[in-house]
Amino acid sequence: MTSLIRLYVTNKLTNGIEVELTEKQHHYLVHVMRRELGDEIVLFNGRDGEWRGKLQILLKNSGRIIILEQLREQNLEADLWLVFAMLKRGPIDFVTEKASELGVSKLCPVITGRTNSKKVNLDRLKKIAMEAAEQCGRLTVPGICEPQRLEQVLSNWPEGRGLVLLDESGAGKPIAEVMADRSHRNGDAICIGPEGGFESTELEYMKNLSFVTSASIGRRLLRAETAAIVALAVWQALAGDWTKEQMVNY
Amino acid sequence: MTSLIRLYVTNKLTNGIEVELTEKQHHYLVHVMRRELGDEIVLFNGRDGEWRGKLQILLKNSGRIIILEQLREQNLEADLWLVFAMLKRGPIDFVTEKASELGVSKLCPVITGRTNSKKVNLDRLKKIAMEAAEQCGRLTVPGICEPQRLEQVLSNWPEGRGLVLLDESGAGKPIAEVMADRSHRNGDAICIGPEGGFESTELEYMKNLSFVTSASIGRRLLRAETAAIVALAVWQALAGDWTKEQMVNY
Repeated sequence: MTSLIRLYVTNKLTNGIEVELTEKQHHYLVHVMRRELGDEIVLFNGRDGEWRGKLQILLKNSGRIIILEQLREQNLEADLWLVFAMLKRGPIDFVTEKASELGVSKLCPVITGRTNSKKVNLDRLKKIAMEAAEQCGRLTVPGICEPQRLEQVLSNWPEGRGLVLLDESGAGKPIAEVMADRSHRNGDAICIGPEGGFESTELEYMKNLSFVTSASIGRRLLRAETAAIVALAVWQALAGDWTKEQMVNY
Repeated sequence: MTSLIRLYVTNKLTNGIEVELTEKQHHYLVHVMRRELGDEIVLFNGRDGEWRGKLQILLKNSGRIIILEQLREQNLEADLWLVFAMLKRGPIDFVTEKASELGVSKLCPVITGRTNSKKVNLDRLKKIAMEAAEQCGRLTVPGICEPQRLEQVLSNWPEGRGLVLLDESGAGKPIAEVMADRSHRNGDAICIGPEGGFESTELEYMKNLSFVTSASIGRRLLRAETAAIVALAVWQALAGDWTKEQMVNY
Protein backbone atom coordinates (compact mmCIF):
# COMPACT_ATOMS: atom_id res chain seq x y z
CA MET A 1 0.00 0.00 0.00
CA THR A 2 1.44 3.36 -1.01
CA SER A 3 -0.04 6.22 0.92
CA LEU A 4 -0.78 9.46 -0.90
CA ILE A 5 1.78 12.21 -0.55
CA ARG A 6 0.49 15.63 0.48
CA LEU A 7 2.44 18.64 -0.75
CA TYR A 8 2.16 22.23 0.35
CA VAL A 9 2.57 24.58 -2.62
CA THR A 10 2.27 28.32 -3.03
CA ASN A 11 0.59 28.17 -6.46
CA LYS A 12 -3.07 28.86 -6.99
CA LEU A 13 -4.95 25.55 -7.19
CA THR A 14 -7.84 25.02 -9.55
CA ASN A 15 -9.04 22.49 -12.13
CA GLY A 16 -6.69 21.72 -14.97
CA ILE A 17 -3.81 24.02 -14.12
CA GLU A 18 -0.26 22.75 -13.92
CA VAL A 19 2.06 23.19 -10.97
CA GLU A 20 5.80 23.30 -11.59
CA LEU A 21 7.74 21.37 -8.94
CA THR A 22 10.45 23.19 -7.02
CA GLU A 23 13.86 21.54 -6.94
CA LYS A 24 13.23 20.33 -3.39
CA GLN A 25 9.79 18.94 -4.21
CA HIS A 26 11.23 17.17 -7.24
CA HIS A 27 14.00 15.62 -5.17
CA TYR A 28 11.55 14.58 -2.45
CA LEU A 29 9.05 13.01 -4.84
CA VAL A 30 11.52 11.25 -7.08
CA HIS A 31 14.47 10.33 -4.90
CA VAL A 32 12.99 10.08 -1.43
CA MET A 33 9.48 8.82 -2.16
CA ARG A 34 10.24 7.09 -5.49
CA ARG A 35 7.22 8.52 -7.28
CA GLU A 36 6.88 8.02 -11.02
CA LEU A 37 5.12 9.60 -13.96
CA GLY A 38 1.36 9.28 -13.56
CA ASP A 39 1.44 8.89 -9.77
CA GLU A 40 -1.11 10.86 -7.81
CA ILE A 41 -0.21 13.60 -5.36
CA VAL A 42 -2.43 15.64 -3.03
CA LEU A 43 -1.83 19.40 -2.89
CA PHE A 44 -2.91 22.31 -0.70
CA ASN A 45 -1.87 25.94 -0.46
CA GLY A 46 -3.66 27.26 2.60
CA ARG A 47 -6.33 29.04 0.50
CA ASP A 48 -7.96 26.85 -2.13
CA GLY A 49 -8.68 23.64 -0.24
CA GLU A 50 -7.17 20.26 -1.05
CA TRP A 51 -6.68 18.93 -4.60
CA ARG A 52 -5.78 15.69 -6.28
CA GLY A 53 -3.13 15.98 -8.96
CA LYS A 54 -1.03 13.71 -11.13
CA LEU A 55 2.67 13.75 -12.04
CA GLN A 56 2.29 14.76 -15.66
CA ILE A 57 5.83 15.60 -16.66
CA LEU A 58 8.90 14.22 -14.94
CA LEU A 59 12.37 15.16 -16.17
CA LYS A 60 15.76 14.72 -14.56
CA ASN A 61 15.60 17.91 -12.51
CA SER A 62 12.10 19.22 -12.97
CA GLY A 63 8.53 18.12 -13.23
CA ARG A 64 4.92 19.20 -13.32
CA ILE A 65 1.73 18.15 -11.58
CA ILE A 66 -1.59 18.61 -13.33
CA ILE A 67 -4.44 19.43 -10.96
CA LEU A 68 -7.40 17.08 -11.45
CA GLU A 69 -10.10 17.65 -8.86
CA GLN A 70 -10.84 19.23 -5.52
CA LEU A 71 -10.96 16.80 -2.62
CA ARG A 72 -11.88 19.23 0.16
CA GLU A 73 -12.88 22.86 0.33
CA GLN A 74 -10.82 25.23 2.42
CA ASN A 75 -12.36 25.17 5.89
CA LEU A 76 -12.08 27.71 8.64
CA GLU A 77 -9.40 26.34 10.97
CA ALA A 78 -9.08 27.28 14.61
CA ASP A 79 -7.25 30.59 15.05
CA LEU A 80 -5.00 29.57 17.92
CA TRP A 81 -1.56 31.05 18.60
CA LEU A 82 1.12 29.48 20.74
CA VAL A 83 3.30 32.03 22.54
CA PHE A 84 6.18 30.10 24.07
CA ALA A 85 9.51 30.94 25.66
CA MET A 86 12.41 30.00 23.40
CA LEU A 87 13.81 26.52 23.92
CA LYS A 88 16.88 24.61 22.90
CA ARG A 89 17.02 22.93 19.51
CA GLY A 90 15.51 19.54 20.36
CA PRO A 91 12.56 20.89 22.37
CA ILE A 92 11.81 23.81 20.01
CA ASP A 93 11.76 21.45 17.01
CA PHE A 94 9.45 19.20 18.96
CA VAL A 95 7.07 22.01 19.94
CA THR A 96 6.97 23.22 16.35
CA GLU A 97 6.11 19.79 14.98
CA LYS A 98 3.51 18.93 17.60
CA ALA A 99 1.88 22.37 17.63
CA SER A 100 1.53 22.12 13.86
CA GLU A 101 -0.09 18.70 14.19
CA LEU A 102 -2.36 20.11 16.88
CA GLY A 103 -3.69 22.85 14.65
CA VAL A 104 -1.93 26.00 15.87
CA SER A 105 -2.27 28.90 13.41
CA LYS A 106 0.81 30.82 14.56
CA LEU A 107 3.88 30.06 16.66
CA CYS A 108 5.39 33.02 18.52
CA PRO A 109 8.69 32.22 20.21
CA VAL A 110 9.39 34.82 22.91
CA ILE A 111 12.30 35.86 25.07
CA THR A 112 11.60 36.06 28.79
CA GLY A 113 13.76 36.87 31.81
CA ARG A 114 14.76 33.23 32.31
CA THR A 115 15.01 32.19 28.67
CA ASN A 116 18.35 30.49 28.02
CA SER A 117 18.12 30.14 24.26
CA LYS A 118 17.96 33.38 22.36
CA LYS A 119 18.76 32.25 18.84
CA VAL A 120 16.75 30.07 16.54
CA ASN A 121 16.92 29.02 12.91
CA LEU A 122 13.51 30.11 11.65
CA ASP A 123 13.96 28.40 8.31
CA ARG A 124 14.40 25.08 10.07
CA LEU A 125 11.24 25.65 12.11
CA LYS A 126 9.29 26.66 9.00
CA LYS A 127 10.34 23.46 7.29
CA ILE A 128 9.31 21.38 10.31
CA ALA A 129 5.94 23.14 10.44
CA MET A 130 5.34 22.63 6.73
CA GLU A 131 6.21 18.93 6.86
CA ALA A 132 4.00 18.39 9.90
CA ALA A 133 1.13 20.16 8.13
CA GLU A 134 1.64 18.01 5.02
CA GLN A 135 1.70 14.87 7.11
CA CYS A 136 -1.27 15.55 9.38
CA GLY A 137 -3.81 16.56 6.78
CA ARG A 138 -4.49 20.18 7.73
CA LEU A 139 -5.15 22.70 4.97
CA THR A 140 -2.81 25.45 6.18
CA VAL A 141 0.77 25.77 7.38
CA PRO A 142 1.16 27.66 10.66
CA GLY A 143 3.05 30.93 10.58
CA ILE A 144 6.19 31.36 12.67
CA CYS A 145 7.09 34.79 14.05
CA GLU A 146 10.53 36.24 14.56
CA PRO A 147 11.44 35.91 18.24
CA GLN A 148 10.45 38.99 20.24
CA ARG A 149 10.59 39.95 23.89
CA LEU A 150 7.51 38.82 25.82
CA GLU A 151 6.50 42.40 26.72
CA GLN A 152 6.78 43.43 23.10
CA VAL A 153 4.33 40.73 22.02
CA LEU A 154 1.92 41.48 24.84
CA SER A 155 1.97 45.25 24.41
CA ASN A 156 0.99 44.84 20.75
CA TRP A 157 -1.66 42.22 21.47
CA PRO A 158 -4.54 42.27 18.97
CA GLU A 159 -7.92 43.52 20.16
CA GLY A 160 -10.33 40.69 20.90
CA ARG A 161 -7.81 37.84 21.07
CA GLY A 162 -7.63 35.95 24.37
CA LEU A 163 -4.52 34.45 26.00
CA VAL A 164 -4.46 31.47 28.34
CA LEU A 165 -1.42 31.66 30.59
CA LEU A 166 -0.26 28.26 31.84
CA ASP A 167 0.61 29.45 35.33
CA GLU A 168 3.18 27.25 37.04
CA SER A 169 2.58 28.96 40.39
CA GLY A 170 -0.61 26.92 40.64
CA ALA A 171 -2.72 30.07 41.02
CA GLY A 172 -5.03 29.68 38.02
CA LYS A 173 -8.23 27.68 37.71
CA PRO A 174 -7.90 24.01 36.66
CA ILE A 175 -7.02 23.84 32.97
CA ALA A 176 -10.21 21.98 31.95
CA GLU A 177 -12.39 24.69 33.50
CA VAL A 178 -10.52 27.41 31.67
CA MET A 179 -10.48 25.66 28.31
CA ALA A 180 -14.17 24.75 28.46
CA ASP A 181 -14.88 28.51 28.46
CA ARG A 182 -12.84 29.33 25.37
CA SER A 183 -14.46 29.77 22.00
CA HIS A 184 -12.78 28.32 18.94
CA ARG A 185 -14.15 30.98 16.65
CA ASN A 186 -12.59 34.01 18.32
CA GLY A 187 -8.86 34.29 18.07
CA ASP A 188 -7.23 32.67 21.07
CA ALA A 189 -3.71 31.95 22.30
CA ILE A 190 -1.79 29.89 24.83
CA CYS A 191 1.30 31.12 26.65
CA ILE A 192 4.00 28.79 28.04
CA GLY A 193 7.00 29.88 30.12
CA PRO A 194 10.64 28.78 29.96
CA GLU A 195 12.12 25.80 31.82
CA GLY A 196 12.79 27.87 34.93
CA GLY A 197 9.31 29.40 34.84
CA PHE A 198 8.29 33.02 34.40
CA GLU A 199 9.78 35.59 36.76
CA SER A 200 7.31 36.81 39.37
CA THR A 201 7.27 40.29 37.83
CA GLU A 202 6.38 38.74 34.46
CA LEU A 203 3.57 36.73 36.04
CA GLU A 204 2.22 39.82 37.82
CA TYR A 205 2.37 41.87 34.63
CA MET A 206 0.53 39.24 32.63
CA LYS A 207 -2.16 38.58 35.21
CA ASN A 208 -3.10 42.25 35.13
CA LEU A 209 -3.74 42.25 31.40
CA SER A 210 -7.43 42.11 30.58
CA PHE A 211 -7.05 39.48 27.84
CA VAL A 212 -5.10 37.02 30.03
CA THR A 213 -6.69 34.06 31.86
CA SER A 214 -4.52 31.88 34.13
CA ALA A 215 -4.85 28.11 33.94
CA SER A 216 -3.21 25.63 36.26
CA ILE A 217 -2.02 22.06 36.09
CA GLY A 218 -0.97 22.27 39.72
CA ARG A 219 2.62 22.70 40.66
CA ARG A 220 4.87 23.00 37.64
CA LEU A 221 6.06 19.48 36.97
CA LEU A 222 6.16 19.34 33.22
CA ARG A 223 8.92 20.25 30.86
CA ALA A 224 8.08 23.36 28.86
CA GLU A 225 7.52 21.41 25.64
CA THR A 226 5.24 18.91 27.38
CA ALA A 227 3.23 21.75 28.93
CA ALA A 228 2.75 23.28 25.46
CA ILE A 229 1.35 20.07 23.99
CA VAL A 230 -0.84 19.47 27.02
CA ALA A 231 -2.39 22.93 26.82
CA LEU A 232 -3.00 22.63 23.07
CA ALA A 233 -4.54 19.17 23.47
CA VAL A 234 -6.93 20.28 26.21
CA TRP A 235 -7.87 23.38 24.19
CA GLN A 236 -8.65 21.29 21.09
CA ALA A 237 -10.64 18.79 23.15
CA LEU A 238 -12.75 21.36 24.96
CA ALA A 239 -12.93 24.39 22.68
CA GLY A 240 -11.53 23.42 19.30
CA ASP A 241 -11.53 20.80 16.59
CA TRP A 242 -12.41 17.81 18.75
CA THR A 243 -15.60 19.16 20.30
CA LYS A 244 -18.93 17.67 19.32
CA GLU A 245 -19.89 20.88 17.48
CA GLN A 246 -16.78 20.75 15.30
CA MET A 247 -16.68 17.00 14.74
CA VAL A 248 -19.99 17.01 12.88
CA ASN A 249 -18.26 19.05 10.19
CA TYR A 250 -15.83 16.28 9.42
CA MET B 1 20.58 28.94 41.76
CA THR B 2 21.20 25.22 42.05
CA SER B 3 18.02 23.21 41.83
CA LEU B 4 17.64 20.20 44.09
CA ILE B 5 18.34 16.83 42.55
CA ARG B 6 15.70 14.15 42.98
CA LEU B 7 16.88 10.56 43.07
CA TYR B 8 14.84 7.39 42.82
CA VAL B 9 16.23 4.72 45.16
CA THR B 10 15.07 1.25 46.10
CA ASN B 11 16.05 1.54 49.77
CA LYS B 12 13.54 2.02 52.54
CA LEU B 13 13.41 5.70 53.48
CA THR B 14 12.99 6.88 57.04
CA ASN B 15 14.57 9.35 59.48
CA GLY B 16 18.27 8.97 60.13
CA ILE B 17 19.04 5.98 57.93
CA GLU B 18 21.84 6.05 55.41
CA VAL B 19 21.53 5.22 51.74
CA GLU B 20 24.53 3.84 49.90
CA LEU B 21 24.89 5.31 46.40
CA THR B 22 25.03 2.94 43.46
CA GLU B 23 27.92 3.42 41.09
CA LYS B 24 25.66 5.17 38.59
CA GLN B 25 24.17 7.50 41.18
CA HIS B 26 27.66 8.33 42.43
CA HIS B 27 28.81 9.13 38.91
CA TYR B 28 25.73 11.23 38.21
CA LEU B 29 25.94 13.25 41.41
CA VAL B 30 29.69 13.83 41.41
CA HIS B 31 30.71 13.98 37.77
CA VAL B 32 27.55 15.10 35.98
CA MET B 33 25.92 17.34 38.58
CA ARG B 34 29.10 18.34 40.47
CA ARG B 35 27.61 17.76 43.89
CA GLU B 36 29.87 17.91 46.96
CA LEU B 37 29.95 16.68 50.52
CA GLY B 38 27.12 18.25 52.51
CA ASP B 39 24.93 19.00 49.49
CA GLU B 40 21.26 18.19 49.81
CA ILE B 41 19.48 15.61 47.67
CA VAL B 42 15.80 14.69 47.50
CA LEU B 43 14.93 10.97 47.49
CA PHE B 44 11.87 8.86 46.79
CA ASN B 45 11.29 5.13 46.42
CA GLY B 46 7.67 4.83 45.33
CA ARG B 47 6.53 3.75 48.82
CA ASP B 48 7.69 6.06 51.61
CA GLY B 49 7.03 9.52 50.19
CA GLU B 50 9.70 12.12 49.48
CA TRP B 51 12.67 12.79 51.76
CA ARG B 52 15.43 15.35 52.11
CA GLY B 53 18.89 13.91 52.55
CA LYS B 54 22.48 15.11 52.64
CA LEU B 55 25.65 13.77 51.04
CA GLN B 56 27.32 12.54 54.21
CA ILE B 57 30.20 10.48 52.87
CA LEU B 58 31.75 10.99 49.46
CA LEU B 59 34.68 8.85 48.36
CA LYS B 60 36.22 8.35 44.94
CA ASN B 61 33.81 5.62 43.85
CA SER B 62 31.20 5.48 46.55
CA GLY B 63 29.17 7.63 48.85
CA ARG B 64 26.30 7.78 51.30
CA ILE B 65 23.30 9.99 51.81
CA ILE B 66 21.87 10.43 55.28
CA ILE B 67 18.09 10.87 55.34
CA LEU B 68 17.05 13.97 57.28
CA GLU B 69 13.32 14.61 57.03
CA GLN B 70 10.21 13.74 55.12
CA LEU B 71 9.08 16.41 52.64
CA ARG B 72 5.92 14.74 51.35
CA GLU B 73 3.93 11.68 52.29
CA GLN B 74 3.32 9.02 49.68
CA ASN B 75 0.09 9.97 47.95
CA LEU B 76 -2.24 7.84 45.93
CA GLU B 77 -1.34 8.52 42.31
CA ALA B 78 -3.68 7.95 39.40
CA ASP B 79 -3.72 4.30 38.31
CA LEU B 80 -3.58 4.87 34.57
CA TRP B 81 -2.03 2.46 32.08
CA LEU B 82 -0.95 3.31 28.57
CA VAL B 83 -1.34 0.44 26.12
CA PHE B 84 0.38 1.49 22.91
CA ALA B 85 1.50 -0.17 19.71
CA MET B 86 5.28 -0.50 19.53
CA LEU B 87 7.07 2.39 17.86
CA LYS B 88 10.52 3.08 16.52
CA ARG B 89 13.25 4.21 18.86
CA GLY B 90 12.73 8.00 18.75
CA PRO B 91 8.95 7.91 19.19
CA ILE B 92 8.96 5.12 21.80
CA ASP B 93 11.53 7.00 23.89
CA PHE B 94 9.41 10.09 23.56
CA VAL B 95 6.20 8.33 24.60
CA THR B 96 7.98 6.80 27.60
CA GLU B 97 9.32 10.14 28.79
CA LYS B 98 6.12 12.11 28.27
CA ALA B 99 3.83 9.40 29.66
CA SER B 100 6.02 9.30 32.78
CA GLU B 101 5.74 13.08 33.14
CA LEU B 102 2.00 12.80 32.62
CA GLY B 103 1.56 10.38 35.50
CA VAL B 104 1.04 7.01 33.85
CA SER B 105 1.40 4.10 36.27
CA LYS B 106 2.25 1.45 33.70
CA LEU B 107 3.37 1.41 30.07
CA CYS B 108 2.34 -1.64 28.05
CA PRO B 109 3.91 -1.76 24.57
CA VAL B 110 1.88 -4.11 22.37
CA ILE B 111 2.27 -5.78 19.02
CA THR B 112 -0.61 -5.30 16.60
CA GLY B 113 -1.21 -6.37 13.03
CA ARG B 114 0.36 -3.23 11.60
CA THR B 115 3.15 -2.77 14.12
CA ASN B 116 6.46 -2.31 12.34
CA SER B 117 8.77 -2.35 15.35
CA LYS B 118 8.81 -5.58 17.27
CA LYS B 119 11.92 -5.19 19.37
CA VAL B 120 12.63 -2.77 22.15
CA ASN B 121 15.36 -2.27 24.72
CA LEU B 122 13.35 -2.34 27.94
CA ASP B 123 16.32 -1.27 30.06
CA ARG B 124 16.59 1.94 28.05
CA LEU B 125 12.88 2.64 28.49
CA LYS B 126 13.10 1.96 32.23
CA LYS B 127 15.96 4.43 32.53
CA ILE B 128 14.01 7.07 30.60
CA ALA B 129 10.94 6.51 32.79
CA MET B 130 13.03 6.76 35.98
CA GLU B 131 14.73 9.97 34.90
CA ALA B 132 11.44 11.54 33.85
CA ALA B 133 9.93 10.60 37.22
CA GLU B 134 12.92 12.09 39.05
CA GLN B 135 12.67 15.27 37.04
CA CYS B 136 8.92 15.85 37.20
CA GLY B 137 8.41 15.42 40.93
CA ARG B 138 6.18 12.35 41.03
CA LEU B 139 6.61 9.85 43.86
CA THR B 140 6.64 6.67 41.80
CA VAL B 141 8.33 5.35 38.68
CA PRO B 142 5.97 3.84 36.11
CA GLY B 143 6.31 0.15 35.39
CA ILE B 144 7.10 -1.03 31.88
CA CYS B 145 5.78 -4.38 30.65
CA GLU B 146 7.42 -6.78 28.27
CA PRO B 147 5.90 -6.34 24.82
CA GLN B 148 2.95 -8.67 24.26
CA ARG B 149 0.48 -9.20 21.48
CA LEU B 150 -2.56 -6.93 21.78
CA GLU B 151 -5.00 -9.85 22.12
CA GLN B 152 -2.86 -11.33 24.86
CA VAL B 153 -3.07 -8.14 26.91
CA LEU B 154 -6.80 -7.74 26.32
CA SER B 155 -7.69 -11.34 27.06
CA ASN B 156 -5.97 -11.06 30.45
CA TRP B 157 -7.48 -7.67 31.23
CA PRO B 158 -7.99 -7.07 34.96
CA GLU B 159 -11.54 -7.01 36.30
CA GLY B 160 -12.81 -3.49 36.88
CA ARG B 161 -10.20 -1.61 34.85
CA GLY B 162 -11.52 0.50 31.98
CA LEU B 163 -9.85 1.08 28.61
CA VAL B 164 -10.29 4.13 26.40
CA LEU B 165 -9.58 3.25 22.80
CA LEU B 166 -8.46 6.20 20.71
CA ASP B 167 -10.38 5.23 17.61
CA GLU B 168 -8.91 6.68 14.43
CA SER B 169 -11.97 5.64 12.41
CA GLY B 170 -13.75 8.62 13.99
CA ALA B 171 -16.50 6.38 15.35
CA GLY B 172 -16.15 7.13 19.07
CA LYS B 173 -17.59 10.00 21.08
CA PRO B 174 -15.53 13.21 21.24
CA ILE B 175 -12.55 12.68 23.53
CA ALA B 176 -13.58 15.33 26.09
CA GLU B 177 -16.98 13.66 26.57
CA VAL B 178 -15.38 10.29 27.13
CA MET B 179 -12.70 11.52 29.50
CA ALA B 180 -15.12 13.58 31.59
CA ASP B 181 -16.85 10.29 32.46
CA ARG B 182 -13.73 8.49 33.68
CA SER B 183 -12.94 8.20 37.34
CA HIS B 184 -9.38 8.71 38.50
CA ARG B 185 -9.77 6.35 41.41
CA ASN B 186 -10.65 3.23 39.50
CA GLY B 187 -7.94 1.71 37.41
CA ASP B 188 -8.12 3.05 33.89
CA ALA B 189 -6.15 2.74 30.67
CA ILE B 190 -5.70 4.35 27.27
CA CYS B 191 -5.02 2.41 24.08
CA ILE B 192 -3.21 3.89 21.05
CA GLY B 193 -2.72 2.15 17.72
CA PRO B 194 0.32 1.99 15.44
CA GLU B 195 1.18 4.54 12.73
CA GLY B 196 -0.96 2.74 10.17
CA GLY B 197 -3.88 2.41 12.58
CA PHE B 198 -5.48 -0.73 13.97
CA GLU B 199 -6.72 -3.33 11.52
CA SER B 200 -10.49 -3.36 11.19
CA THR B 201 -10.68 -6.81 12.81
CA GLU B 202 -8.72 -5.48 15.78
CA LEU B 203 -11.06 -2.50 16.09
CA GLU B 204 -14.12 -4.76 15.91
CA TYR B 205 -12.69 -7.10 18.52
CA MET B 206 -11.91 -4.26 20.90
CA LYS B 207 -15.23 -2.49 20.51
CA ASN B 208 -17.04 -5.64 21.56
CA LEU B 209 -15.16 -5.87 24.85
CA SER B 210 -17.24 -4.64 27.78
CA PHE B 211 -14.41 -2.61 29.33
CA VAL B 212 -13.58 -0.68 26.14
CA THR B 213 -14.90 2.84 25.36
CA SER B 214 -14.07 4.44 22.01
CA ALA B 215 -12.98 8.07 21.92
CA SER B 216 -12.47 10.14 18.82
CA ILE B 217 -10.35 13.08 17.80
CA GLY B 218 -11.94 13.01 14.37
CA ARG B 219 -10.10 11.58 11.45
CA ARG B 220 -6.71 10.20 12.36
CA LEU B 221 -4.31 13.07 11.76
CA LEU B 222 -1.88 12.70 14.61
CA ARG B 223 1.29 10.67 14.80
CA ALA B 224 0.93 7.78 17.24
CA GLU B 225 3.16 9.42 19.85
CA THR B 226 1.25 12.69 19.63
CA ALA B 227 -2.04 10.86 20.03
CA ALA B 228 -0.73 9.16 23.17
CA ILE B 229 0.22 12.46 24.80
CA VAL B 230 -3.04 14.09 23.76
CA ALA B 231 -5.12 11.31 25.29
CA LEU B 232 -3.12 11.35 28.54
CA ALA B 233 -3.36 15.16 28.78
CA VAL B 234 -7.12 15.20 28.28
CA TRP B 235 -7.54 12.35 30.78
CA GLN B 236 -5.50 14.19 33.43
CA ALA B 237 -7.38 17.44 32.78
CA LEU B 238 -10.86 15.91 32.99
CA ALA B 239 -10.53 12.85 35.22
CA GLY B 240 -7.11 12.92 36.84
CA ASP B 241 -4.57 15.08 38.64
CA TRP B 242 -5.60 18.42 37.17
CA THR B 243 -9.26 18.36 38.09
CA LYS B 244 -10.55 20.72 40.77
CA GLU B 245 -11.11 17.80 43.16
CA GLN B 246 -7.50 16.68 42.89
CA MET B 247 -5.88 20.11 42.82
CA VAL B 248 -7.12 20.94 46.32
CA ASN B 249 -4.85 18.19 47.60
CA TYR B 250 -1.74 19.95 46.38
